[in-house]
Amino acid sequence: MQKGEMLYEGKAKRMYSTDDPNRIIVEYKDHLTAFNAQKKASMEGKGHLNNLISSIIFQALKERGVKNHFIRMLDDTHQEVLRVKILPLEVVVRNITAGSICKRLGVKEGLKLQRPLVELYYKDDALGDPIINDDHAILFGWATEEELKKIKSSAVKVNDLLSEIFDSVGITLVDFKLEFGRTQEGEIILADEISPDTCRLWDKHTGEKLDKDRFRNDLGKVLEAYEEIWKRLSLSHEGGKEEL
Amino acid sequence: MQKGEMLYEGKAKRMYSTDDPNRIIVEYKDHLTAFNAQKKASMEGKGHLNNLISSIIFQALKERGVKNHFIRMLDDTHQEVLRVKILPLEVVVRNITAGSICKRLGVKEGLKLQRPLVELYYKDDALGDPIINDDHAILFGWATEEELKKIKSSAVKVNDLLSEIFDSVGITLVDFKLEFGRTQEGEIILADEISPDTCRLWDKHTGEKLDKDRFRNDLGKVLEAYEEIWKRLSLSHEGGKEEL
Repeated sequence: MQKGEMLYEGKAKRMYSTDDPNRIIVEYKDHLTAFNAQKKASMEGKGHLNNLISSIIFQALKERGVKNHFIRMLDDTHQEVLRVKILPLEVVVRNITAGSICKRLGVKEGLKLQRPLVELYYKDDALGDPIINDDHAILFGWATEEELKKIKSSAVKVNDLLSEIFDSVGITLVDFKLEFGRTQEGEIILADEISPDTCRLWDKHTGEKLDKDRFRNDLGKVLEAYEEIWKRLSLSHEGGKEEL
Repeated sequence: MQKGEMLYEGKAKRMYSTDDPNRIIVEYKDHLTAFNAQKKASMEGKGHLNNLISSIIFQALKERGVKNHFIRMLDDTHQEVLRVKILPLEVVVRNITAGSICKRLGVKEGLKLQRPLVELYYKDDALGDPIINDDHAILFGWATEEELKKIKSSAVKVNDLLSEIFDSVGITLVDFKLEFGRTQEGEIILADEISPDTCRLWDKHTGEKLDKDRFRNDLGKVLEAYEEIWKRLSLSHEGGKEEL
């Protein structure tokens, strides 16, 4: 599988075409950004770790019935995935309050929610990815009502599965962000990445933060945290295990 | 009916207790604020006009089956209303894009929406009244799921009725904000005010803005616009007619 032209460069990944119009190659970069890219850094090995972690997770989700874009890991920083048209929505699921929601709504960090809270954001860097409701998505044509229903119920299912997967390796899944894409056939499937860049992950026993908040809040040992997540996941999951 | 102690002072109104624990007196102030009270002014007669306009509208809504707090206008700036506990939610209904939504979501002003768009905001001045979704309201205890359903369907009904009322006097209802309260018996009813302070109202033929945007955007002739709204409404509606 040969990398063709670069189709898109995001903050943490690059996408390349391949010979197969239905498949693309994703390259995980070492770049870390936070606060809508106002804070930036590069950490050697971050892309490799996120590629490993995301591969394990997407593989595990696929095995548990969640259709997604992941095909296989190609090498340290590359994945082969299905080509989809990413919807301009970020879907955030929260189990415990942390981060932006605390500041925005004046709620304490660490509140355990009675049930998962689902939020939609309109993916637009220039606007700062504003939070939206279902009506905005439907009326401005970012997703149909039916698509939204599917996306949200898939997000809740992913939350159940991920919570279980992380719990089994001693980690509390606090919140995470998902993106979905439309296949050539018009089906909505899970896409993008799931990694410590896109999840809040706390050690179940010590409460230690093992995710991008270490970078956001200058807690140090960012890569060590990502590596810890990879090590724990790879002990209990096949995908990515033999790759480091 | 005697004004008792002041119970609450908001940006545009004061509330007073009465002898009757179920009823309070609302005083409409001349104060105008915008952009979360960063811009302030006082215009003599504004309170009187909003009292007149809001009285006409709440009376008309009551006659059309929308339960609300309005009992009667007492004098130029005072109303007698049912005592309710205001929910910490602002419900915004939009028929045409204008104002904050355009900036926040990068959409053009003046887009006619396919159907009314309903938004919820968490009423908290210190936080700048952040926009929320249903999950936030339910999970943080600001309203129950059932209450939200009622509030939203009532907001859409109010939109239908108000659009008709304004259309009949040559005005386009662009958007508006509602607040709801819980009665002593636990029933959710419409409360607060409906006036050019809380609605965007455009002349149907000229497009002229006849609402608080004249103040927000320094268009001048603020009071004249409010008076125009009152005059047109009072010609076709009883409430408030004889009071000026």
